[in-house]
Formats: sequence, structure tokens, C-alpha cells
Amino acid sequence: MSHSLKMGLIGGGPGAFIGDVHVKAARLDGGVDLVAGVFSRDSAKSRQAGRSYGLADERIYPDIAGMIAAEQALPEDERIDFVAIATPNDSHFPIAKAFIEAGFHVMCEKPMTHSTNEARQLHELVNRSAVVFALMHNYTGYPMVKLARDMIRAGDLGALRKIVVQYPQGWLSTALEQTGQKQAEWRTDPARSGAAGCLGDIGTHAANLAEYITGLQITHVCAEVTTFVPGRRLDDDVSCLLRFGPDVRGILHASQIAAGEENALRIAIHGEQASLSWCQQQPDVLMLTPLDSPPQIWKRGNPWVAQKSPAADRATRLPAGHPEGYLEAFAAVYHNFCDTLRARKHGRHPEALVQDFPGIEEGLRGMRFIETVLKSAHSEVKWIEF
Amino acid sequence: MSHSLKMGLIGGGPGAFIGDVHVKAARLDGGVDLVAGVFSRDSAKSRQAGRSYGLADERIYPDIAGMIAAEQALPEDERIDFVAIATPNDSHFPIAKAFIEAGFHVMCEKPMTHSTNEARQLHELVNRSAVVFALMHNYTGYPMVKLARDMIRAGDLGALRKIVVQYPQGWLSTALEQTGQKQAEWRTDPARSGAAGCLGDIGTHAANLAEYITGLQITHVCAEVTTFVPGRRLDDDVSCLLRFGPDVRGILHASQIAAGEENALRIAIHGEQASLSWCQQQPDVLMLTPLDSPPQIWKRGNPWVAQKSPAADRATRLPAGHPEGYLEAFAAVYHNFCDTLRARKHGRHPEALVQDFPGIEEGLRGMRFIETVLKSAHSEVKWIEF
Amino acid sequence: MSHSLKMGLIGGGPGAFIGDVHVKAARLDGGVDLVAGVFSRDSAKSRQAGRSYGLADERIYPDIAGMIAAEQALPEDERIDFVAIATPNDSHFPIAKAFIEAGFHVMCEKPMTHSTNEARQLHELVNRSAVVFALMHNYTGYPMVKLARDMIRAGDLGALRKIVVQYPQGWLSTALEQTGQKQAEWRTDPARSGAAGCLGDIGTHAANLAEYITGLQITHVCAEVTTFVPGRRLDDDVSCLLRFGPDVRGILHASQIAAGEENALRIAIHGEQASLSWCQQQPDVLMLTPLDSPPQIWKRGNPWVAQKSPAADRATRLPAGHPEGYLEAFAAVYHNFCDTLRARKHGRHPEALVQDFPGIEEGLRGMRFIETVLKSAHSEVKWIEF
Amino acid sequence: MSHSLKMGLIGGGPGAFIGDVHVKAARLDGGVDLVAGVFSRDSAKSRQAGRSYGLADERIYPDIAGMIAAEQALPEDERIDFVAIATPNDSHFPIAKAFIEAGFHVMCEKPMTHSTNEARQLHELVNRSAVVFALMHNYTGYPMVKLARDMIRAGDLGALRKIVVQYPQGWLSTALEQTGQKQAEWRTDPARSGAAGCLGDIGTHAANLAEYITGLQITHVCAEVTTFVPGRRLDDDVSCLLRFGPDVRGILHASQIAAGEENALRIAIHGEQASLSWCQQQPDVLMLTPLDSPPQIWKRGNPWVAQKSPAADRATRLPAGHPEGYLEAFAAVYHNFCDTLRARKHGRHPEALVQDFPGIEEGLRGMRFIETVLKSAHSEVKWIEF
Repeated sequence: MSHSLKMGLIGGGPGAFIGDVHVKAARLDGGVDLVAGVFSRDSAKSRQAGRSYGLADERIYPDIAGMIAAEQALPEDERIDFVAIATPNDSHFPIAKAFIEAGFHVMCEKPMTHSTNEARQLHELVNRSAVVFALMHNYTGYPMVKLARDMIRAGDLGALRKIVVQYPQGWLSTALEQTGQKQAEWRTDPARSGAAGCLGDIGTHAANLAEYITGLQITHVCAEVTTFVPGRRLDDDVSCLLRFGPDVRGILHASQIAAGEENALRIAIHGEQASLSWCQQQPDVLMLTPLDSPPQIWKRGNPWVAQKSPAADRATRLPAGHPEGYLEAFAAVYHNFCDTLRARKHGRHPEALVQDFPGIEEGLRGMRFIETVLKSAHSEVKWIEF
Repeated sequence: MSHSLKMGLIGGGPGAFIGDVHVKAARLDGGVDLVAGVFSRDSAKSRQAGRSYGLADERIYPDIAGMIAAEQALPEDERIDFVAIATPNDSHFPIAKAFIEAGFHVMCEKPMTHSTNEARQLHELVNRSAVVFALMHNYTGYPMVKLARDMIRAGDLGALRKIVVQYPQGWLSTALEQTGQKQAEWRTDPARSGAAGCLGDIGTHAANLAEYITGLQITHVCAEVTTFVPGRRLDDDVSCLLRFGPDVRGILHASQIAAGEENALRIAIHGEQASLSWCQQQPDVLMLTPLDSPPQIWKRGNPWVAQKSPAADRATRLPAGHPEGYLEAFAAVYHNFCDTLRARKHGRHPEALVQDFPGIEEGLRGMRFIETVLKSAHSEVKWIEF
Repeated sequence: MSHSLKMGLIGGGPGAFIGDVHVKAARLDGGVDLVAGVFSRDSAKSRQAGRSYGLADERIYPDIAGMIAAEQALPEDERIDFVAIATPNDSHFPIAKAFIEAGFHVMCEKPMTHSTNEARQLHELVNRSAVVFALMHNYTGYPMVKLARDMIRAGDLGALRKIVVQYPQGWLSTALEQTGQKQAEWRTDPARSGAAGCLGDIGTHAANLAEYITGLQITHVCAEVTTFVPGRRLDDDVSCLLRFGPDVRGILHASQIAAGEENALRIAIHGEQASLSWCQQQPDVLMLTPLDSPPQIWKRGNPWVAQKSPAADRATRLPAGHPEGYLEAFAAVYHNFCDTLRARKHGRHPEALVQDFPGIEEGLRGMRFIETVLKSAHSEVKWIEF
Repeated sequence: MSHSLKMGLIGGGPGAFIGDVHVKAARLDGGVDLVAGVFSRDSAKSRQAGRSYGLADERIYPDIAGMIAAEQALPEDERIDFVAIATPNDSHFPIAKAFIEAGFHVMCEKPMTHSTNEARQLHELVNRSAVVFALMHNYTGYPMVKLARDMIRAGDLGALRKIVVQYPQGWLSTALEQTGQKQAEWRTDPARSGAAGCLGDIGTHAANLAEYITGLQITHVCAEVTTFVPGRRLDDDVSCLLRFGPDVRGILHASQIAAGEENALRIAIHGEQASLSWCQQQPDVLMLTPLDSPPQIWKRGNPWVAQKSPAADRATRLPAGHPEGYLEAFAAVYHNFCDTLRARKHGRHPEALVQDFPGIEEGLRGMRFIETVLKSAHSEVKWIEF
């Protein structure tokens, strides 16, 4: 399988969630092999995890510097093509920086960095370098999200007016971080997570989804950011009014204390002539409600979807009625990222359909979104410019 | 049918919507007869409407003063017991005032008056008088809304944290008021509707629903109020951050330009231990999502509902699975209002279950909500106290 | 209110369900007054019920013969125009016969009679008489059921192929009839209910709905009829293959032991070019799934519904998004029945839109359906002709 | 990656659907590499497909015999461990036979063979051999299907009474097979598909799902099997009454002419104390409706699911709210099959949780189901024993 892209992974050790998702998603369409990684700061745990992924011991590295040096020493057709960074937020920047400077392409988890300052540095570094940098806003990989974007681009909604994006979760309704649950621990720890909790973890997904689908940019925010659970050190709930330029209004609601909610990211977009709505928990469905005819249920895998949105079609693997989910959307981001790398390898310029994945700009916007919302949360002034 | 309550109606002429709803709802459970009214400012139209309701010509009056005088002249067992006011907002106050001063009970449409000043006067008048004054916040009549309130009262959710209430409609997405559509005309006309459009028409329902269910009061608002449709003279969209005292946060979204939406009033209430959600378009269903067990679908008409909420049971006419809707909820408000009048007639004090309908306090709060949200909308300061 | 139709009611005493529904539904649109009745075989109970409906004592009758004699003795503009029969099945025939022979119009509950033999006699009697006879298949009153019928009539589905109609209830999962519950008692008692339990009570609704919507007639059945609950004397579950002539196939499933189901009557109709589906528990929605475009959600109250189906529009009282339910559909059957009586009174021929309610033909078909399904259930031959 | 299982694939060439699904599913959890195959009878196409899977040319074989010989000649740690058979039905038997006789484990698509006679031979062969034989009834891989089975095993429904299983699709509503569409061509061709069309393709899935979940076996059928589309050579619609022993009744509906339906396999199971329902198009949800409390929505990934069903937990990769779909369920069947092979390799007996996948018994039952239903379809006798 010499033509496969070779993937390195940072993170994904015992107790982790997203590292394994990266591996499964990257491999889903074939043509990607996980060959190296640092899976934990603890080398015994790293070894254990690496072996469970089927890696040879010599490519399970104890640290980043060692990994980079060793991989650079390998022949070009053996060394990793790219690295996926799936660690807590505080280490994204140093790891990404090291791999970029060593010339490796990067797939990075979000939020992109620990601070906006780091984000600005990384932005500059990526723009100066030749590497491809992708940011894992996985929800943009869903075919029906791409269809929504393409309907709006095609003018099917007319001028947009109002956007309501919500991301309720309930898993942090109690002080789960005090029970030893690893995911809760680091995500509520400022040292590892950054200045924001819920806001960074899922608020950024909601903001990114709204911008990705509409093609608009948030220009002003007015936010209420709350920590409900006693003893918690970061926010667990966000309410936010949004402006997208002078003509479009919005609301963002993100919460990790919405008891009983699972991962109910959803968006409603209202235009002059029609509205769209989509919910991540039924991702194969996009509802279109025109002003002058019955609501329509657009479902992934049908010919009218493919015709309206080649991007949705490209992100579709299975026929209609055969549900695709979270991994498949994640894999769709990888698919475009990897096809971009393949095009680069062969000296081709990847076409627009292929380059459709979030990158350094979205990463920087995400960090600035966090910064701006927190600024608003602490301000008595109504609108803070973004 | 001498024991029936006798109802008068103001409004409900040709092209009107809500007047006929009042009649159907009031009569639904029996024991109420429509016997008199002024159905239009145009006496020919009033005559036409009154006859279509089966009224005798002598009780179809040309104006309010005439109606009051004539009804007062009738023997007590023939004259109206109460009047329902279903006219555009600008006339609520003078009509209500006249009937109250003449000693008739009143069922009034919302928003209660044209201005907060009028609301304050009416509040004082009602409190000084012996009449029963009801405000038609019909959505409080739904059994599952009452169940939600009673679950929260019983502590099933623990302390409340976050409330998200939404009321999207799409029927004013275009300049319908310029086409001669009567409902759109007066509802977008400041002279008849008051200072607010969407905010008064449906935003007040959303705010009232949140307060009714939770038993909390909005204390601060931070609002964005918008007119999207060119040429429209009142707002058609509201986004609002809410505080319910120091510990509870909220979001209110009301819109009449949410293309394709019908009447999708809905609310999600998140507490420490569980969440509730309800949508007016599936009114027989209340979703309860506890932290530690599967989500439960509470449906009207089942014994566990009756046991948890005698108020929901009282507002239920049909067995489970036999849908009840808008008219039935409307009728439930009438049921309690009318049973209160009946108790009064017989010198009994109505029990709490019976007195469960919105009145003058809710009416004044609604007008002050409009005033406060508009003040916030025009302010650069983030939070405006309510 | 001299122009109102005057209604008599048989049944509807304490513990009854459907009698009160008849009253509420008949009165919903105005123009109908309940003025007389026999509400129970027990005259004290009849008196009690009659008074609760607001009737004068002299029109609360102890028995049918007395009622007919007394009403006939009244001046024409005081006596009842029609009688609604809402008693257990065994008394439908003698009561209907008596009123028809006395020249009163009849609204009868289904199943129409206790036996097919009675049904044939009644059929003959009605056809010989001048009275209007309506059968309360209330589910045909739903606007979206009428829309479905009109879409099929208009050829929107192409030739029909397959019909799946289901009516699961769970309320008889246990031996409820042994607990004193009145509804369960008579419905499982052959003496009062007839030869069939679930089959007659709800299976006939399902069959009627399929025939009403499609305009087709069941020609053959192949049935399995079961009594699951020990000690029960009538069936509580029906599975049935159907043929509608040579080209259309169907399945009917009706059950009263489908634990946890409420009243989930639903139908799917598949044609060459599209399918329709509808469920009574969300009655305002009709789903249309064409072969070559996204599924469409047709919702009551929208202009495209009115345009496609004047009958649906006529059966609609409230705007889109304001839920209508069971009572409203029931009332729609009354509306057409009563407007037919009004037309007759004024010597006019009611138009087709008005005559759209089930009658003696549907009643006879229902009884023959019961007979045929039971014959099939006891036969080793596969198909029994209907 | 020397510890990986090595997979061969038969089928999956250009225009195929299910071959690629096998590859993606087998690889999803890691530890399986596709290393060899025959992807088409046309060797150029086979070559093309094999390369697209990243295979070395020397392991892309022109035919089965050549593949078996060559693989047997490889060292044990290089040769394939198992073969997946994803060809049209007519070739399942000879291919499976050849690989089994050569000692390779087999994952076979359903229906298992072209005829019942072949199925009986294969059954005998597998039982005499030491190979592991799995049948790809992928819908048994869904976690919520396993949860349903485990709830029933635990007695949560009480004794079962009625089962309604439906599998409507609409993709063969027109004569698609006459347009050159490859999937439609072979599935409607008796030479390749066998004696049944819709019945074999999806009816067997429905029957298997009912038996898998309930632990019961169908004992009698009474069927109507129809070909609706003119010119079609196999059935495209099935209606069937079922008996599961003396006490349990059922209905099976499978159709490929249910216009607008996608892949809506669904089942409702009614027991004495509760019912379950599940639909493949929302696979993460299982509805439990008890007699005496509100319906419960069991959703994949929650602790109460894991506690009730270790099998559902084992088949779960992602947290609640992160949708899993068709590929993941397919992969769950592979996961158990492959873990069984791994246990065998290490001389361990696989535990019951691991051995939870359909095999030769289910394959033979499926073929006998086809035979029995067709016999019933052509019989005038009502019940045919299964």
C-alpha cells in the first residue's frame, strides 16, 4: 500500500475520546495509514495505545521532538505525510509549530490554540510556510451542511435575515470533573483548556457552523457567559446575540448544563424567501421551508441533493436511507484534506470542491470569537465588535 | 338554559380571527351563551356578524356605550355576565374601562392595552373594582404547560438554570400589510397595535409562557429588536437575553419573518436535575429529560399526568391519543375564568385550581415587558432592569 | 336562536365517553343546540346527565318511545331536528329504526348495528325513508384526510398499488373489563358490542379510512383475529391482508393490546408516482413523498392545501400552526351533516362538498367487513371475498 | 501491522454497492487489512477496483480458483484469514464452498445462496468444517437492536404478543432495471438473484430482524407476493401474516415499490407489559412504551443502555448524541466475527458476547423463509408451515 498517505497522531491515549475518532475517520475511505505517533505524555501509556493501533514499537515515540527527528530521518516514502493533533488545547500550538517548522502537514483539533496570541503566531507561521493546515471543525463535513451552504450560495433563501444556532449538551450538569472523568477534567481546567470552557469547546463549533453555512461573518457580539456548577473554573453556558454585518441578526446558545441533552447542535437560518434547519442528531436531513409551498425534507443520498450540491454528493458514501453519522462527517473533512495533500504530492492544484475544509483562518476566527465573547461577557457595553 | 353564563363579544367581525375563537372556546364546554356584542365599528358589518352568531338583532349593538346601557337595563338573569374584548390593541383600554366601571367581568385579549400608561390605569381600576379580569394568554391553557409548571413546582428539575423560549412565525416575511390583509394591517400599524409589532403580538406570549411555567420573573433584558421588511412600521423580529434574578439565565427569540414557520412557540427549561421541553405545534407532548435515565415523553390524558398535575387533568377533555389543540387550550382558560364567575355568583371562593388563569398582573407585566425590551433595544447599555 | 338546529342525544350518561364528544363537536361551529335526550337507561342518571348539559327537565326523557312521542307533539320549530345515537352497539338499530320511522334525521355511532342482519334492515329502511342518516366515522373529518383523498382523486399518486393501515391501541392490554371500567366492559361484551371487539371498535375505522381516502373498495380479506387477554370474550387484535380489486394490495393491523400505544391510527398509501402517509396523532400533517423530489410536509391551514382540496379547507377553522384535533374533526363531520339538514330545510340540494360524510352505505360495509373478517379468521381458505 | 487479520474480497467492482461497504466496515475498528480479492468477472475491471483499494497487483486475482491456489501457497502469516463474498446471489454458494473447502473463514452476503438446496448443502458443509461462517445480516449489528433483544430476554416486555415488521423501499417503483442500473439489473434477474426479488433482498432482513430481536422463530406464514412493475421478472412487494408458535402473531411488510421510501426497516414488538419500536433510519433510538408510565426514548451511548445490554455497549463507538449509522452497524458484525477469528487463532473460545453474529443457521432459515413464503403465495391454503 505504498500509495497511502502516512499519518502520525499526537494524543489519543487511554481515556481519550477524539484521537481514536481521528484515526477511524482518516482511515474510513482507505488510502491513509496510521504509522507513527505520541499517544500520551506517559511513555508506557503511549506504548500501550500505539500497539493497540497496530503500530511497530519503533514508531511509538516518547515525545514530539524525538518523533520529528526520527520521522525526518526516514526515507520520504516511509515518513509521515501529516500529523493529527488531538491533545488538550494547551499543547496544540507548540506541537503544531514544531511539525509545521519541520515541514509536515497538520490536522489540528479545535479550538486551535490556548490563546489568541498563539493563534496569531500560528496564523503567521502557516501563511509563511508551504504546509497544508486543517482545523477539525468536523460538523462542516456533513453532506447536509454542505447542501445548506450551497442552497444559500445559489440564492434559494434570498437575502438572509436571522440565524439561530444552538448547541446544548448536558454532560457537565454536575461537577463531573471532580470524579476523575478525564474528558471533564481537562475541558474545565483553564491551564489545559484556555480561557473558555463551554464557549471554546462547543461555542466555537456553533459559530463556525453558522459562518460556514451562511458565508457570512459575525461582526458584533453581545454575550452572557455563565458558570452554573459550583466550583467549576470555566464557563458552562453561553447566551449570545450576534450581528452578521448591518443586515443580519443572530442568536447563539451553547450549554453544557442543558440536562439530558446529548449533542444537539442545530441551526435555523431564515431568509427572505425560505428557511433552512438542520440538527446534528439527525444529520442526514435538511429541512427547507419555502414561503409559498410545503416544507421539504431534503435527505442525503438523493439525486436532487447531488444536483444541487456536488460538495454534499462528494461527502456521501451510502445511498439514501442508509444512515451516515459523526464518523462519516469527520471522515469527509479528512477526505478533502487528504485529497489536497495528494494533489500537492502530484504537483496538481486541488480544485475548490477538494479544498473545502476549515483551516488556519477559521482557527484564528475561532480564537478571536472566544476572546470577543469573553470581552463582551465582562462588559457593560452592549455590542462588542468582532 | 337559564344557568348558563351570558357572554358579550366586542370585535370578531368579518375578516377577524380571534373573536370567533373566543366564541368557540367559551362555548366548548357548555354553559356559556353568546348573547350580545359589538362586532365591528361599521354597524352593517356588526349586524352581519352578530346574525351569523345567531344573535337576536336587538342585542347586536352599534357601539360600546349603547351596549352597556342596554345590557344594564336588562333583568339580571338576561344581561351579560362578562364581555370578551377581541379588538385591535388600541381599543382594549377604553372598552375594558367602560365595562369594568359598569360592573361587568372582562376577558381581554393581549397585549392588554395600547400603552404601559393605560395598563397602569387599568391595573388600578381592576384592583379597586370587584370584577374578575382575565387576560387571554391562551397558551397557558394547554394541559402540558400546566404539567410543566407543576413538575417544576414539585422540584422535579431541581433549581432552574437556563430557559430558552422561541416563537418563530413566518407569515409577515413579506409586506402582507400592503395587500389589504386585515390581520397584517392592524398588527403592523402603530396606531392600532401600539409601540411594538412582533414583540407585542407574540413576544409577550413567549415571555408570559416562560414566567408561567417556571414561576420566575424576568428581572433584566438585553434586546435586539429589528424591522426586516422594508416599509414596515413596527418590529418583526426580537432577540433577547434574559435574566430571571441572579441565578437563572434565558434567551427569547420571537420572529414574524422566520419564513415557513407557522406558530412554533416552544420552550426548553434546564434545571440541575432534568430539562423540560414543549412545543405548541405538538401540544399534547411534554418531554422530560432527566440526567440519569432515558428521556420521557409525557402525553396528555394518561394517569401519571393526572397524578402529577391536577391542573393538567382539569384542562383535559379527551383520552390520550385523541389530539386536543389550540381551541381546547383557549377553552381551558375560559373554563377557569367562567368557573370563577360561577363561584362568585354562588358566593363561593373559587379554589386555586379554578383561579388558574392570567389576569391584570400578567397584563401589566406584558406591557412593561414591551416597554423594557424597547428601551433596551434603543440603549447602548447591556442590561436594562425590568 | 331560532335558526339553530335542535339536537337530541341518546347515550352520554355518567362514565360514557363518546356522547359528550358528540355534543361538543355538534356545537363547535355554532348553530346547533342540544335540547333533548335519553342519557341513560337509569332515569336518575339520565336526569343528572341531562341537567349537566343544561337541559330543561321536561326534555330529559326516561326512554326512546317517550322521547319520540313527546318530541313529535312539539311544534315543528321546537322539536329536535336530529338525534345522535351514542349508546353501545346493541341498541343502535332499535333506536335508529324508531327515530327514522318517526321521521327524524339520525347521526349514528359506529359500528352501525349489532349484526349484519340489522345493518341490512337499516340500510333498506333508510333508503326507503326521507331522513338523512350519518355514520360517525369521525376520522374522515380531518382536513388532511380529505386532502389525501383529493390528491389521489387528482391523480397525484398515479395508480395506487399498496395500502398499509394500522390502528394500534394499548388500553386493553390487561383485563380492564374486570375492574369495572365502563368503556372496557361494554366493548368486550358480545351482548352489547356484537360479534367483534377490536375488529368492530377500531378495525372498522381503519378499513373505512382506507376506503374513504383511496376511493377503492376492499374486495378480499385474509385475516387472523386473536384474543390475547385471558378471559376476554371478544377479539383484541386483528391482522389482515387485503385486496382492493385485482391490482391493489393492502395490510390492516388493528390492536388493543399494543402496550403503550394510545390511538395511533395511521395509513400509508403507495402509488406509482408518490406515496402519502398520515397519522391521527399528528392530524394536521400529511406527508407526500414523490418519486423524484424531496418529501413534502403538507400542513393544514396553508393556501396550497386549500387550493388542492376545498374539502380540507372547508374542514379547517384555524390558521396553520394552531393545532386542531379530534373534536374539530368530529365537528367537521357534524358540520357537513348539519349543513345538509339545513339545505334540506330550505329546499336546496346540498352540494357535493357538503354531502361529504359517511352514511348508511359505509355503515353496511362496516358490518359486512366485520362479518367477512370473522369468516376469514375461522376459515382455512386463504382469501374470503368481501 | 503483522497482527492484523487479512481479508479477501469477492465482488465490489465498479458499479457495485455492498463490496465497498464490507471493506470500510471491516476496517473501521482497525486490525483488518484488505489484501487480496477478485473484484469482477472482467479482469480489467477487477484490476481497476483492486488498485483503487490499494492492493498490490499480484493479489488482484482473475478468478476464485486462482485466488485460492495462490493464497494457499503464501506463508500463513501473509495469506488471507477470511474472505468476504459480496457478489450477486447466484455465485455465493460455489464461492463459499470453494473457500470453505480450502479452509478459509467466510463472511457471506445474504440471501445466503441461490436456492434452498444450495443452502442445505452449505449448511452441511459448514457444520462438517472448522471454518467460521458469518452471514451479513447487518441490521443485527445496531446497538439498539441488541438492546431491544436484551430487554426482551430480561423479561421487560413480559410475554410477547404481536410483532409488526416493515421494510418499505421505493427505489424499484419504476422499471429501473431497464435503464442499465447495475443494482436493479441483477436484483430483478432470477438467474442472479434467485426465486425472489424484494422477498429475498429485504424480506429476509425483516424476518431475520424479528427473529433476532425476539428470540422467537416464525412457524407459519400466510403470504401475498406481488410484482407491480410491468415487465419485472421477480416480486417487488410482500405482505405476510406470521405466527411465531401458538401464542405470538405477526405481520411482515416488505416493498420496493413504496414510492419515496428509502430504507425504512422498522419493527414494533408488543408484549404484555410494554412495547418496543425501532426504525433503521434513526438507529440510535429505541422507544420503550410501558403500560404504566411515560414512553421512554433509549438512546445509544448512555450508561443505562450499557448497563442493560453489554452487547449494545460493545457495539458502541461514540458517545451519546454523536450519530452512528449503517457502516458502524455493519462494522459491529465484522467486529464480532473478527474477534471470533482472533480468539480461534489464539486457541481461545470466544465468549458469547463475541459470538453474537448471524451465521449458517440464519442463512438456511433465510432461504427456507423465501421458499416458504413463495409456497404460501402460490397456495390457496391459508397457513403454510415454516
